Amino acid sequence: MIMPNMATMLAFIVTDAAVEQSWLKKVFSEANDASFNIISVDGDTSTNDTSLILANGMAGNPTIREGTGDAETFRSQLQAVLLSLAQQIVRDGEGATKFVEISIKGAQSVADAKKAAMAVANSSLVKTAFFGQDANWGRILAAVGYSGAEVDADRIELFFDDVQMVRNGVFTGGNAEERGSEVLKRKEFAVTVDLKLGQGEATVYTSDLSYEYVKINADYRT
Amino acid sequence: MIMPNMATMLAFIVTDAAVEQSWLKKVFSEANDASFNIISVDGDTSTNDTSLILANGMAGNPTIREGTGDAETFRSQLQAVLLSLAQQIVRDGEGATKFVEISIKGAQSVADAKKAAMAVANSSLVKTAFFGQDANWGRILAAVGYSGAEVDADRIELFFDDVQMVRNGVFTGGNAEERGSEVLKRKEFAVTVDLKLGQGEATVYTSDLSYEYVKINADYRT
Repeated sequence: MIMPNMATMLAFIVTDAAVEQSWLKKVFSEANDASFNIISVDGDTSTNDTSLILANGMAGNPTIREGTGDAETFRSQLQAVLLSLAQQIVRDGEGATKFVEISIKGAQSVADAKKAAMAVANSSLVKTAFFGQDANWGRILAAVGYSGAEVDADRIELFFDDVQMVRNGVFTGGNAEERGSEVLKRKEFAVTVDLKLGQGEATVYTSDLSYEYVKINADYRT
Repeated sequence: MIMPNMATMLAFIVTDAAVEQSWLKKVFSEANDASFNIISVDGDTSTNDTSLILANGMAGNPTIREGTGDAETFRSQLQAVLLSLAQQIVRDGEGATKFVEISIKGAQSVADAKKAAMAVANSSLVKTAFFGQDANWGRILAAVGYSGAEVDADRIELFFDDVQMVRNGVFTGGNAEERGSEVLKRKEFAVTVDLKLGQGEATVYTSDLSYEYVKINADYRT
């Protein structure tokens, strides 16, 4: 079934480097988890997302494996390639006008941080607020609240880029509203929520929910 | 925080009937699970949804309790009132142009059926297809597939009202496309998915995702 409007994703990575198979599998899996698996345009997982890597050894280099001199370089470059591809998918998302990094810090666990980040990234209310360039921190905190992650409402902090909107669970006031709104006008910005409970961190990249998203997905056959 | 655009829901049920407190609590909880807890406009749980019941005994009737003659009547009428209120919320959903009943049958468990029904109801791709009056059964099966419910792709069946689109996991063909499209043009219709694996059933009521949804939630402050 070919249906590009479902965000079906096929990634093929090829390299001439000689790389030990088991180690390549491990670092490729890690790089996928840190790239394709942390993006969401609309929360709809496609039926046939695929990511493949081929290392054919044509370069004639000494085989890269765990602990060899080139291992860290190869790993970090592989992660950079996959992250770039994943971010391009979000930037090219159906009707996307914004590219947003959602970072959760201070969660009790990494699992909690991921749950919270995905809940924010997939919230239609949050995504329409991004489209409307509305610094609506309340919708973001609501999504974190229903995500299932452990939250202490009296500790939570929220930032739009470097503008702090919420401290100890309370709106920071002053000119934060105006400064936050300026951030939301940018094409790319970061939302950071610090739960102040532990060391768990996670980042998800997402887009907004626009008229164009509805148009593309409602009328694609007409 | 007053923010009606977040679908904040406050339900107050009052009756003059005398009803035993513990039994009332039980049937009210059941009626909530079969009404307010099976609707979703956009998957965003509000921070302050509330459902309260008061039975003040002014009617002077013999107290209704488990096993009394009026118990079943009271229970079924209470469920009907709550279900009506819940369905009105969906019909009045932000930008809703469709009212859709999502029914999952034949799941291995009720939990599986609920997971699948909620995944379909909350899929932006499914909801934009409803808005576009597009009989896109593929998006519905994709959502069932990623819901986490046990699925046998070779057994699944799908109906739009009484029009069967999928049998044993395969498009039924013939004029199903045209007949399915006619169903999607209705203001209200049912999507039924039979997993053919067990006895688990669940129903969720939902709306479509329209331009107006985006407009209401993106521009409500301007």
